[in-house]
Amino acid sequence: MKARITVTLKPSVLDPQGKAIEGALGSLGFAGVGSVRQGKVFDIELSGSDRAAAETQLKAMSEKLLANTVVENYRVEILDNHA
Amino acid sequence: MKARITVTLKPSVLDPQGKAIEGALGSLGFAGVGSVRQGKVFDIELSGSDRAAAETQLKAMSEKLLANTVVENYRVEILDNHA
Repeated sequence: MKARITVTLKPSVLDPQGKAIEGALGSLGFAGVGSVRQGKVFDIELSGSDRAAAETQLKAMSEKLLANTVVENYRVEILDNHA
Repeated sequence: MKARITVTLKPSVLDPQGKAIEGALGSLGFAGVGSVRQGKVFDIELSGSDRAAAETQLKAMSEKLLANTVVENYRVEILDNHA
């Protein structure tokens, strides 16, 4: 089973990296860029085919390792279920 | 208009960071984790409401700044169109 976890900074948290990209895009001549926020994705291959169990496991992984829930949000998606 | 660019390593490229996360998940007791690959997401706010023009612009941004197309793939999504 393929899954994707997307970790993004909470909206209230400053994102200097995003700001830098915003500036760089402006310097490159891209107009109309409002705000840029950078996040992370994790593409995870899981064995087993129980979707609900996989979601629970992926959430636990996010809480324990992948996301810092003080400043970050995460979203879990199951991309396919051909295991 | 909100857009998301997802940049992932090409499948043929080694991902040591992903491997490290794989190992860490194993040490934390998560079983059945096959492979982990890490990528980046950019959430970009654009002015204007021309979807096709926005897509062209986002692709140009990816090629020029956000992705290293030698080793990375990118995907452009328009998340909403309420500009």
